[in-house]
Amino acid sequence: MFRTQTCGELRLSDVNKTVTLAGWVQRTRKMGGMTFVDIRDRYGITQLVFNQDVNAELCEKANKLGREYVIQTTGVVKERSNKNAHIPTGEIEIIVTGLNILHSAEIPPFTIEDESDGGDDLRMQYRYLDLRRNCVKKNIELRHKMTFEVRRYLDEHNFLEIETPILIKSTPEGARDFVVPSRMNPGEFYALPQSPQTFKQLLMVAGFDRYFQIAKCFRDEDLRADRQPEFTQIDCEMSFVEQEDVLNIFEGMTKHLFKQIKNIDFTEPFPRMTWADAMKYYGSDKPDIRFGMKFVEIKDLTSGKDFVVFDSSEYVAGICAEGCANYTRKQIDGLTDFVKRPQIGAKGLVYVRYDADGTLKSSVDKFYTQEELKSWADRFGAKPGDLMLILAGNRLKTQKALGELRLEMGSRLGLRDKNKFAPLWVVDFPLLEWDEDTQRYYAMHHPFTSPKEEDIPLLDTDPGKVRANAYDMVFNGVELGGGSIRIHDGELQDKMFKVLGFTEEKAHYQFGFLMDAFKYGAPPHGGLAFGLDRFVSLFAGLDSIRDCIAFPKNNSGRDVMSGAPSIIDDSQLEELQLKLDLKDAK
Amino acid sequence: MFRTQTCGELRLSDVNKTVTLAGWVQRTRKMGGMTFVDIRDRYGITQLVFNQDVNAELCEKANKLGREYVIQTTGVVKERSNKNAHIPTGEIEIIVTGLNILHSAEIPPFTIEDESDGGDDLRMQYRYLDLRRNCVKKNIELRHKMTFEVRRYLDEHNFLEIETPILIKSTPEGARDFVVPSRMNPGEFYALPQSPQTFKQLLMVAGFDRYFQIAKCFRDEDLRADRQPEFTQIDCEMSFVEQEDVLNIFEGMTKHLFKQIKNIDFTEPFPRMTWADAMKYYGSDKPDIRFGMKFVEIKDLTSGKDFVVFDSSEYVAGICAEGCANYTRKQIDGLTDFVKRPQIGAKGLVYVRYDADGTLKSSVDKFYTQEELKSWADRFGAKPGDLMLILAGNRLKTQKALGELRLEMGSRLGLRDKNKFAPLWVVDFPLLEWDEDTQRYYAMHHPFTSPKEEDIPLLDTDPGKVRANAYDMVFNGVELGGGSIRIHDGELQDKMFKVLGFTEEKAHYQFGFLMDAFKYGAPPHGGLAFGLDRFVSLFAGLDSIRDCIAFPKNNSGRDVMSGAPSIIDDSQLEELQLKLDLKDAK
Repeated sequence: MFRTQTCGELRLSDVNKTVTLAGWVQRTRKMGGMTFVDIRDRYGITQLVFNQDVNAELCEKANKLGREYVIQTTGVVKERSNKNAHIPTGEIEIIVTGLNILHSAEIPPFTIEDESDGGDDLRMQYRYLDLRRNCVKKNIELRHKMTFEVRRYLDEHNFLEIETPILIKSTPEGARDFVVPSRMNPGEFYALPQSPQTFKQLLMVAGFDRYFQIAKCFRDEDLRADRQPEFTQIDCEMSFVEQEDVLNIFEGMTKHLFKQIKNIDFTEPFPRMTWADAMKYYGSDKPDIRFGMKFVEIKDLTSGKDFVVFDSSEYVAGICAEGCANYTRKQIDGLTDFVKRPQIGAKGLVYVRYDADGTLKSSVDKFYTQEELKSWADRFGAKPGDLMLILAGNRLKTQKALGELRLEMGSRLGLRDKNKFAPLWVVDFPLLEWDEDTQRYYAMHHPFTSPKEEDIPLLDTDPGKVRANAYDMVFNGVELGGGSIRIHDGELQDKMFKVLGFTEEKAHYQFGFLMDAFKYGAPPHGGLAFGLDRFVSLFAGLDSIRDCIAFPKNNSGRDVMSGAPSIIDDSQLEELQLKLDLKDAK
Repeated sequence: MFRTQTCGELRLSDVNKTVTLAGWVQRTRKMGGMTFVDIRDRYGITQLVFNQDVNAELCEKANKLGREYVIQTTGVVKERSNKNAHIPTGEIEIIVTGLNILHSAEIPPFTIEDESDGGDDLRMQYRYLDLRRNCVKKNIELRHKMTFEVRRYLDEHNFLEIETPILIKSTPEGARDFVVPSRMNPGEFYALPQSPQTFKQLLMVAGFDRYFQIAKCFRDEDLRADRQPEFTQIDCEMSFVEQEDVLNIFEGMTKHLFKQIKNIDFTEPFPRMTWADAMKYYGSDKPDIRFGMKFVEIKDLTSGKDFVVFDSSEYVAGICAEGCANYTRKQIDGLTDFVKRPQIGAKGLVYVRYDADGTLKSSVDKFYTQEELKSWADRFGAKPGDLMLILAGNRLKTQKALGELRLEMGSRLGLRDKNKFAPLWVVDFPLLEWDEDTQRYYAMHHPFTSPKEEDIPLLDTDPGKVRANAYDMVFNGVELGGGSIRIHDGELQDKMFKVLGFTEEKAHYQFGFLMDAFKYGAPPHGGLAFGLDRFVSLFAGLDSIRDCIAFPKNNSGRDVMSGAPSIIDDSQLEELQLKLDLKDAK
């Protein structure tokens, strides 16, 4: 061992001990005849002292140390006269008697500090240096601790962690599969799993009862800001359970994590909200309920007053921003621009100011009287000093836009505190989603999600109305995980495939082995999967999942550090019996 | 929840409780007016009782249950008159009052019993049924328990589990990479990692100090009997350590597993053996030291007696099989056939019987006198009643053949008890291996393995003689894991690349990002990786790793259950800008 202690553990009680430390040079300072060197390792920082008068040669050596040199040093622990209360080792220093340079270092391209001067691209290119920064390192430590506690909780609840294969059969449904050519079976391909879904259901058929896996999953999607081509799921499945059992176990797991990691007690059950209510009051299937500002619908109060925009809209609704009546014209224009952005897509924004003197001023004063505006304000529960912001249009689109506006106002009003955690179960999701382009239904989750028993007859008459035994866990407007009770009955599954427009052949080709398995006795089962990256990000207070992943990829799916993906040898392609067929030869 | 208890937990103390169980029908027996049904779940088997006289309808229903039906049943726990001491629930039974068929089942293609009538192919095709068998299920449970204990031990020793990417840069060295075409970067490919080697070294450069990961690894090799295209490693790396530190930590981990899982205490340090001794005495770099039968070299005693086979051989050595002097001609012929098999490749076998009366009989009596044979026997330490088996030829090849013969004799003599565990560290591996075909050196482990400091000068003069800081942990003749102290010095690494015949360009292209990283301060580091599949197999007493993997692939890399790999849609290929280029159109 190159050290007797780490750089984070020495205290006053260690004074006069002779110790050996090893680590990186954080900084050096020369003051008169003294040289101070901060040595850093994973555990902390310790101050080393070199005295020109005591050992000139050693002090010279110290003066030549550069940032990020790797050194090994021996010395005696002494009490500091000038204590540093900001670090745990701040009461001591090491009077150095020996110094060994283990590795020199070029000047790093950015400073290894919490507030670094490196931009994102540079940080990603030199990720191994970025990871040295305390603020990044602690996310990786947090991730370890969270996965360890997840495993501990699930093990205590009789779950078995079972590895499912990474090289699986391609079943293109939902997102695109990454595929892997098989050299031993030319012309054939494996796929990388988008999730272990079919395998975990097979494990239930196999009788494993309570399964989990912290599993790598893969989606060949065009990457949005916060997506990665490979990501990690806490994937779980249980047999002989109903929805309530699944919610209880994973609510328990989440509470366990909050308690163990953040020492936060959730003593009350997590609130629950139907998907219908989530859309109605928040315009989102993952409402941020750290704050109120629920949607208020006023279509009935606005009709017949010749305001065409409202009259021609199926849906008129708004939110009440408390204490915002003093918003300037410019601020309101800013909000109008916000909702008119293409990603949000509203046509315009109507506002009603409830001034402190009790009068109401709006952008639609031409059409509505004070009494009419007052009736709106009453429904909003608005008080003098509040600002009502109203959108109109097609119900679903307008709800979504209003949801975005609500989040924006929440942020502006400081209602979205990262240290406040608001859990929510969203339940009763629709089973199916209608797609206008292809004129067919798609499974909102996946084709194995079970409909609510009382809604099964609607599968024949009004499939869009069927609710599923499906649920999401939401925190602060982020979907942490979701799942469903599965169909375990072959006939119902066949019906689902039909509703989803699968031919019998296609259903058999893609899922035949699962359907065959069910024939040998499938238990009732259901499960849930959490996005680990998001879970860690929530705990770490990160805006992006990228910083809780040791080696993330950029938006083009590229690892700029190692240079993946890259071209491969022609001989490799030949062995795989493949040829490139590039459309735009470069 | 569909049950109040599992099928494994009811005891005499539960008598008179009303319970609900759910599970699979293991078997039904009709005896007079009574029907007995064994219900099985992951936790055990419980006997259900139906009485024709008490409830004829219910009993009728029970009589119609088939094997593997999924049922839910309610009843009252009663003491059995006819107790079954073989199962933990054998003192009670359930007098059933309610029965609910959750899922019917077709007749399974093989019996769900420890001694099944299903062959390997059938079992793999219906793996979900195979996994229901207790003997397979318990391997999967063992695997969970072992990985959990590995994590617990390493967490307690300050290791962080850090996920490294699965989609990485292709660095074709060693085995073949599986590659993954990148749709977003046409013409470019990711590779699947053969191990997280470079990433774990980068994590050391990043300062993480103690890393581990239970990681999926991939090798596109022609599969031998006991290889899988995807396999799992317990992958570890440490900074600021020497070989001794690594051995201590992982010897500790192994002892922890034996204690926790098998309640076996290893109180002594694991024995250590140099690679040179392992080859000299056992003809293997992974000796099975559950038994002795060490090689004895007798070249000097055999020379100059006109026996051309020995005289023309650089190496003459044998083993002494205790108490085997009574082997028949036929048995010895069998051993001769064994060593002459192409996989072993010996030309023949010389035997010397040390008969009970003190006389020596050999297959080379024409050439050697009794006194000469006696001098051999003395060197072998043979006693009357023993049998000496001797091979001759090229040293390395003959050592390997003799090693196989030794294992065969160990098996025949019952010296390889699966319940005996003989640990061994093999150390001081050669750094390089000479390959006759390509006339160059290859890294025996990988190009980052460090040479022993005292052997570095030999890199210039006699590279084949250089010993590495490399080590394997061996149990019962199986290599469980191995690792090395890495080169952390750039200059030495450059030299290694040169010895291995890498051009500067090639070294830079393949490992440039790692070498670049080192320039910013690399700590001394080293590590080890265990093959999890082998580790579990050892604990489970399995001959193949296949049965400790939930969904293994066969020797063609095929998952016969799901039908992976398979052809993919032309549209998928087109999106990837690839074309098949099949040599033998089928």
